[in-house]
Amino acid sequence: MEIKSELEKRISEIETIIEQYLPREEGYQKTVLRAMNYSVRAGGKRLRPMLMQETYKLFGGNSKVIEPFMAAIEMIHTYSLVHDDLPAMDNDLYRRGKKTTHAVFGEAMGILAGDGLLNFAYETAAKSFFLEPENPNTGKAFSVLAGKAGIYGMVGGQTVDVESEGREVDEEKLSFIYRFKTSALLESSMLVGAILAGADEGQQEVIESVAGLVGMAFQIQDDILDETSTLEVLGKPIGSDKKNHKSTYVSLFGMEASRQEVERLTLQAMEELKSLSLENEFLSELLLYLIHREK
Amino acid sequence: MEIKSELEKRISEIETIIEQYLPREEGYQKTVLRAMNYSVRAGGKRLRPMLMQETYKLFGGNSKVIEPFMAAIEMIHTYSLVHDDLPAMDNDLYRRGKKTTHAVFGEAMGILAGDGLLNFAYETAAKSFFLEPENPNTGKAFSVLAGKAGIYGMVGGQTVDVESEGREVDEEKLSFIYRFKTSALLESSMLVGAILAGADEGQQEVIESVAGLVGMAFQIQDDILDETSTLEVLGKPIGSDKKNHKSTYVSLFGMEASRQEVERLTLQAMEELKSLSLENEFLSELLLYLIHREK
Repeated sequence: MEIKSELEKRISEIETIIEQYLPREEGYQKTVLRAMNYSVRAGGKRLRPMLMQETYKLFGGNSKVIEPFMAAIEMIHTYSLVHDDLPAMDNDLYRRGKKTTHAVFGEAMGILAGDGLLNFAYETAAKSFFLEPENPNTGKAFSVLAGKAGIYGMVGGQTVDVESEGREVDEEKLSFIYRFKTSALLESSMLVGAILAGADEGQQEVIESVAGLVGMAFQIQDDILDETSTLEVLGKPIGSDKKNHKSTYVSLFGMEASRQEVERLTLQAMEELKSLSLENEFLSELLLYLIHREK
Repeated sequence: MEIKSELEKRISEIETIIEQYLPREEGYQKTVLRAMNYSVRAGGKRLRPMLMQETYKLFGGNSKVIEPFMAAIEMIHTYSLVHDDLPAMDNDLYRRGKKTTHAVFGEAMGILAGDGLLNFAYETAAKSFFLEPENPNTGKAFSVLAGKAGIYGMVGGQTVDVESEGREVDEEKLSFIYRFKTSALLESSMLVGAILAGADEGQQEVIESVAGLVGMAFQIQDDILDETSTLEVLGKPIGSDKKNHKSTYVSLFGMEASRQEVERLTLQAMEELKSLSLENEFLSELLLYLIHREK
């Protein structure tokens, strides 16, 4: 499998799905709708909906009930970026080579576009109740989606991340930040896919663990790229962690140990995934690809 | 019925319910949890959960399934206040006689506390799926909760409200702002109560209309109080609409017409409610009380 061209094809398919759920830019409130769509359309790897869809397929899922959840997880991811970029947070003017939402639409609209995306994510996911009313797992999927995005998930991680700026953090706290700020949404993605496809409790536990490992590897790879990549490749200024005085895995343990940890986490994730004895070649290739990515 | 003392009793009962769903202030992320709880505990009339509970009772609802939704609607209302008060939005330092959330916890934590509350609202409401798994209406209740809070509800109204600052707005646009920014959450409150109790489609329509009328009356009364009340009674600076150069019903049509409109809307709401031929004396008294309130 030629992963890069396959990835591009999948990203384009996923974007077509997400596009169907974006609001039309009309009505008195159209500025916030434009700001939301601008943020979602700004690109990205669409990794979360992709992991959700592939995990859904892994467990034999084959209906459109997954699609509103795929759009929802990308909206949640996007809202978190929009709010993270605000002046009172990371104060970033560029992301993925484009101006950030508040840089284009102003700070108030940045706040409201984030709020709009977060609300609309749940409104969109709720469409699943009507698409497949007999699916007994939609309620649990909903519960996981909200839980992993919130104070015991991503928002919890963002809180500690913000409070740690300019301070030395130890390994335990850094691990909390990575697990909550980054892994939580990947766990949500893969778990929701598994749950909606009818995976049993044991299988759900394996998937949650795999996603947690992938999330940690993904975040450490992010730290590595922040020091070694270039503005052109990354689409955003490099060295932003240093600029914001943020402790990272690289600043704590050095580049070599970081590379080894990414490798170790990914291999463990692959092994746990294999223990399920289920086949999804693309999913395995995707996870391996993530540690070799350059942006 | 002595409405004032009855109201106090109900408010206290509702606060006991909400309190059970608030997060414990522990863990690395406890600052955001403290900020969230500070915001929710800052007081208020608890009007939304009260309307939800009373509408639920009106249609014969009698289980605890309503309680997570009651907590959720108050969290959604509170998140909207926290974000509205931010420097980039209304820039308010006081509300209900207390410092606003960002004034106490800083701007980044104000953003995150709002995000945390919004997410946690959906996480909390999702508990209903496990409390009453056989209730066929929870999915629709969820859908209404998210829909009325979002871009085709409150966030839509906030957007136009923010954009209209310092500009003259006409009656149609003002009506849009009031309907979306204020009525939408009251519609959500009463509709969710009706839906979870099993009201039929026709009854749901009546309830949505009643709530819409109550919301308009409530907002115009708010405008009146903003001009006629005092800091001590209202718990926040009066004249804030003028300060923020906001058009209101009072600035467009004058005080007398505004008072008459509140009366007219409320009586129409009462009449439509009566058409259901269902009894809830407290709910009727509550709606009447709202037009005579002084804060």
